[in-house]
Amino acid sequence: MRHDFETHRRQAANIFRAWGMPAEKAEKSAGVLAWADLHGLESHGIALLVEYNERRLTRPINFQSKPAIVQETPVSALIDGDGGLGHEPAISAMETAIAKATPAGVGVVSVRNSGHFGALGYFTTMATDHELIGIAATSVFGVRVPPTGGAAARFGTDPWSFAAPAEPGRPFVLDMATTTVASGKVRNKIVEGQLMPPGWGMDGKGVPTLDPKAVMEGGFLSPLGGAAESAGYKGYGLAAMVNILASCLSGSTLITDPNHSKQPWGLDVGHFFMAINPALFRPIADFRADVARFCDDLRATPPVDPLEPVQVAGDPERRVRAEREKTGLPIGPGLHRRLYQIAQESGADWVLSPLDFTVDSFQFTDGKETRGKA
Amino acid sequence: MRHDFETHRRQAANIFRAWGMPAEKAEKSAGVLAWADLHGLESHGIALLVEYNERRLTRPINFQSKPAIVQETPVSALIDGDGGLGHEPAISAMETAIAKATPAGVGVVSVRNSGHFGALGYFTTMATDHELIGIAATSVFGVRVPPTGGAAARFGTDPWSFAAPAEPGRPFVLDMATTTVASGKVRNKIVEGQLMPPGWGMDGKGVPTLDPKAVMEGGFLSPLGGAAESAGYKGYGLAAMVNILASCLSGSTLITDPNHSKQPWGLDVGHFFMAINPALFRPIADFRADVARFCDDLRATPPVDPLEPVQVAGDPERRVRAEREKTGLPIGPGLHRRLYQIAQESGADWVLSPLDFTVDSFQFTDGKETRGKA
Repeated sequence: MRHDFETHRRQAANIFRAWGMPAEKAEKSAGVLAWADLHGLESHGIALLVEYNERRLTRPINFQSKPAIVQETPVSALIDGDGGLGHEPAISAMETAIAKATPAGVGVVSVRNSGHFGALGYFTTMATDHELIGIAATSVFGVRVPPTGGAAARFGTDPWSFAAPAEPGRPFVLDMATTTVASGKVRNKIVEGQLMPPGWGMDGKGVPTLDPKAVMEGGFLSPLGGAAESAGYKGYGLAAMVNILASCLSGSTLITDPNHSKQPWGLDVGHFFMAINPALFRPIADFRADVARFCDDLRATPPVDPLEPVQVAGDPERRVRAEREKTGLPIGPGLHRRLYQIAQESGADWVLSPLDFTVDSFQFTDGKETRGKA
Repeated sequence: MRHDFETHRRQAANIFRAWGMPAEKAEKSAGVLAWADLHGLESHGIALLVEYNERRLTRPINFQSKPAIVQETPVSALIDGDGGLGHEPAISAMETAIAKATPAGVGVVSVRNSGHFGALGYFTTMATDHELIGIAATSVFGVRVPPTGGAAARFGTDPWSFAAPAEPGRPFVLDMATTTVASGKVRNKIVEGQLMPPGWGMDGKGVPTLDPKAVMEGGFLSPLGGAAESAGYKGYGLAAMVNILASCLSGSTLITDPNHSKQPWGLDVGHFFMAINPALFRPIADFRADVARFCDDLRATPPVDPLEPVQVAGDPERRVRAEREKTGLPIGPGLHRRLYQIAQESGADWVLSPLDFTVDSFQFTDGKETRGKA
């Protein structure tokens, strides 16, 4: 089933509004999710509403949050997210970084007391739209990754994004978890009955394994690089860097703190944003031309497989976007029904396609669906 | 054979001076190399003199370079390295970044027309000595790494460093190549007759291999993460980020340019340095305390092997340093003799231990030693 971008955005906004978010904030937050679906990043699209719905039932999330700048200089700002979801404070943070970097050359914005904000590439791309370099990092909710040599989880997927303007409409956009893969890919291997490639995960004792069940049943995701012998300590180091920038700099609750995600005032996730103006060093046009030439040189590398040309960070998402602008954003039947149920429970208007059977003919328990007569 | 830090530094300075470097510059550059030996980073210590010696015979290196700031704002500077080695302009660059970040909150310094500068951790640690976050990145000379899906080299080891102050004397210092390993480790596997772990390298067709000979004979080093299925495209993305920051921002010759390392005016390597003042967001003492607590939380993770406690980036190098401050910096007999030969050829004073046989009893050809009567 497919819908256009605007329908995804409206459905998400309707649900956010039904949860108590003011209209303007709901539109902004929904735009971040629909952007991810448009670019093929479904794990960060409207599917997140399912996760947000579970989280809001067990944790304090302030849907009427009023994020505000609490400290500021010509090159920086500290924003308090007021205990809400992170999309709106993250947009404000990158807008602030851009507004400062345009005259001052650099803008660094730290956000505390915030929540999940979707795909980092959304925010770093905002910087490239203004001919600036964009950087973003965030601490996360889930703790799934041990430090190298450790047998207990201390990190999450702790993502990092770096984007630079190149040709118009073709920025370099790196947006990566500092783990090798996310849990979803491990789950898929269980479903397919396959072993994992090396470097994806560890068992409950912290020993690298190829068995996806050992990862999902008490085991751990690996930092990028996998085992120590294949330099997993570098992915571990990058995850620590992300937490220092996102949590320590903003004063948010550390992911290693026993109160992580359990503070009475909110999830207290921290973010880090930066914009750098290339004009500090060169005419922007020269910088853009060099980034574009560099990306083209990479794309022109003789490929291992003649049918798979070399790509640059941002290319795969642009290909998906070009296709989905014509054919629409896909949504699977399970998510479609789950979102319908959430909309019904919340009293949100439904704008996605109607279901082809009534919702009371099946039940959800812990995310699993069981069909049956109502 | 072991010497103290000062002897390593003096020997390197003597050789640099013999190559035409003014005394003060030679002292500074030598200090960067000896620092690496002190911290167990031998590949970036005085062993580099062998590589620099080869390079100066085939490429233009300006040992009398006068690096200078050519463009400046309250938060930034662009430094031209004047075609020399990179140690001195890199020290100046980080000093400038620190001097700007102390009042302004951020200092970003770009360096063009420079050369090799040793270990990045030296420079990011300078920032932590001033209670600042330090970031450094550099493009490199050697081209050994293909982009994911490519069958030709387009990158080098393209390193990245991030450091943050914590407890006094125990900063967090991440200093990593964006490849899984450096060539030296692959060579060691050949010597030991062993296969490599997954993720280290590719053969000449760009296909991942465990055979170290296939890597050294026409093959490639892997970006961090290894093959695409274990997220090697993330290491590739980080390498591209490093080149955008180091080369595109400074206007240095791109590593993908046919004239890379062949410009008539010098090696034209570009660097990137940044210092961020945590006081933009929090009292520095609070930030340091949180970084220290975070690092201690990580160190306290139950270890996989009870004899191998979990470490944090910077810990292994500090352990080596503590030991070497007592026992001295080791140097192998091969390097000892090679440096002696370089010192003799250059007319540099020799301050390391005397050789225990005369130097004319053996010859070097292409780095290989053959013993024999003179």
